[in-house]
Amino acid sequence: MGPHPAVAAIRLAVRRVLHDILNDHSLPQQAGAALPTGTPPRSGAEAPSPPLVLVACSGGADSMALASALAFEAPRLGIRAGGVTVDHGLQPGSDLRAAEVCLRLRELGLDPVESTAVTVGREGGPEAAARDARYAALDHAAERHGAAAVLLGHTRDDQAETVLLGLARGSGIRSLSGMAAVSGAGGRYRRPFLELDRQTARKACMMQSLPVWDDPHNADPAYTRSRLRHEGLPALEKALGKGVVEALARTAQLSRDDADALDTWARQAEATVRDAAGLLECAKLYALPPAVRRRILRRAAIEAGAPAGSLFARHIEEVDRLITGWRGQGAINLPGKVVAQRQGGRLVIRQG
Amino acid sequence: MGPHPAVAAIRLAVRRVLHDILNDHSLPQQAGAALPTGTPPRSGAEAPSPPLVLVACSGGADSMALASALAFEAPRLGIRAGGVTVDHGLQPGSDLRAAEVCLRLRELGLDPVESTAVTVGREGGPEAAARDARYAALDHAAERHGAAAVLLGHTRDDQAETVLLGLARGSGIRSLSGMAAVSGAGGRYRRPFLELDRQTARKACMMQSLPVWDDPHNADPAYTRSRLRHEGLPALEKALGKGVVEALARTAQLSRDDADALDTWARQAEATVRDAAGLLECAKLYALPPAVRRRILRRAAIEAGAPAGSLFARHIEEVDRLITGWRGQGAINLPGKVVAQRQGGRLVIRQG
Repeated sequence: MGPHPAVAAIRLAVRRVLHDILNDHSLPQQAGAALPTGTPPRSGAEAPSPPLVLVACSGGADSMALASALAFEAPRLGIRAGGVTVDHGLQPGSDLRAAEVCLRLRELGLDPVESTAVTVGREGGPEAAARDARYAALDHAAERHGAAAVLLGHTRDDQAETVLLGLARGSGIRSLSGMAAVSGAGGRYRRPFLELDRQTARKACMMQSLPVWDDPHNADPAYTRSRLRHEGLPALEKALGKGVVEALARTAQLSRDDADALDTWARQAEATVRDAAGLLECAKLYALPPAVRRRILRRAAIEAGAPAGSLFARHIEEVDRLITGWRGQGAINLPGKVVAQRQGGRLVIRQG
Repeated sequence: MGPHPAVAAIRLAVRRVLHDILNDHSLPQQAGAALPTGTPPRSGAEAPSPPLVLVACSGGADSMALASALAFEAPRLGIRAGGVTVDHGLQPGSDLRAAEVCLRLRELGLDPVESTAVTVGREGGPEAAARDARYAALDHAAERHGAAAVLLGHTRDDQAETVLLGLARGSGIRSLSGMAAVSGAGGRYRRPFLELDRQTARKACMMQSLPVWDDPHNADPAYTRSRLRHEGLPALEKALGKGVVEALARTAQLSRDDADALDTWARQAEATVRDAAGLLECAKLYALPPAVRRRILRRAAIEAGAPAGSLFARHIEEVDRLITGWRGQGAINLPGKVVAQRQGGRLVIRQG
């Protein structure tokens, strides 16, 4: 008798990603994938050390399920599996909590396992600050251990929430594209569960008798994501019917592909709208589709020093009117003390 | 003392659109726009008759506000203003209701004013069927009266709801682009209130002592849009903060521009990926960005006879795998008895 469907699902998702990692890195251990199931790769003086894949684990259901699947699949592919848990230090006893997660990861057979403590700042709000600190710590751990990849437990439900958070910004399709299946420097971060629902991860933990920890932050209405999860998304499902989460996740993928294609177009078009001095020619910009022109304007503003995070659609629209609605407007102030103005048929964007 | 801000806002929105209509049609009456306010265009044997703009009015706050603003602005621009109300025949007494709306439109000074009764079918569900019947009736009325345009009262709130309905389909950014400010044959339909909130329309009616009718359908939880309006969207606002409606409306505009640009790219690229016999070459399709390739595949399927409304993202993904994940798959069945298959490096999509 095979494993429970939920357990089979999490393992399959992880197995696919491990294959990708082996292929992408074109490691000598790739041959290990062809070994009969259960046969460990031979160790010897001449054999290169097997690649290491880490799982980032909070002790919650999603990442515990991920850790269990990694522990099961990695040895079969000649991969070493390790785990990292980040102690954000935001709650009393978080260090004990982290130590307990480490213990469980070791019980699953992961090695190396470590807890890393971070200091969460305030930049960009509590959620963004915690995320920044967490990824810095994971980057550091991956480098220290020479890991080929770090697996993250984000599920399709997390993806749906991320799309809605992006929608609330109203800043276009890039912000609707959610989290990528592969991201970070050199494609370090992988999200095997991005097409798997949270319920399956939870079920898989239950079927494997894995104790899971429910982060109180996840239910704290002070956090936007938590409100979205417990109130916003359920109300949306009630109004629009089941399948909203799946639709949001599919929207993310389609939006990502669309945004990538348009970025490519804008990069190529940008070279054709600059004069010999490298200035943007208004007449040539005017001839481009608005979607492409605005991307060029945004890139130019960022290149001139405007911080991407503070540059909103309305800023770009105002600059765009120098091209499409020219009636002698003055200079336009953008974030980062960047100034955009039209001079003699050219658009000049620079730090003022 | 000028009008109340809400009344000023609805009039400004209508004035802008009336100017657009005059410009777009390049009518001889365009000169009328330069007449001093309040001066009626001269009538005479040699003067061409002034253009007619109709308002579609349900008697609700949005379209009553629109009708009042049209009645005020049109004469100042040398435009005739008329009104149409559609009797959907879905509730007892709907004919009396329609007659009452006509009376109010006449009181506003609109002429011609008419009520047109339709029979609502069942195709695509109750909301889609009512919409289809309504637009057919409006098209008919516009043609009968030789109207230059028909104004529709959709507000920014309606737009936000439409974006969420599109999001629930999960079929990509075209379905996120909501309603266009200009649509229909020859740009017949115009939506002057698309950037105005529902509250402003309601306030404008109140300030002008215009009685408004609340369609019970709008509060009926049997309708998806009604559930979205009264439960889904408020819950989303509570989770994500005020500004969600505005963000959704901005998403619509940005998505529309992006979708238009990508459609243009796909149209242009399509010519370059066909062989001498007009068949799609898989190798050339493979080299395109996924977003462009999938649009070409979708167009080809529709051209072969697949109904656009039944062709989902998952269908196109499956056809796409004939290009990106070729392992000798068989023919793929698409809606409308269309079949896609790979033959000798070519993609053949035709009615089976």
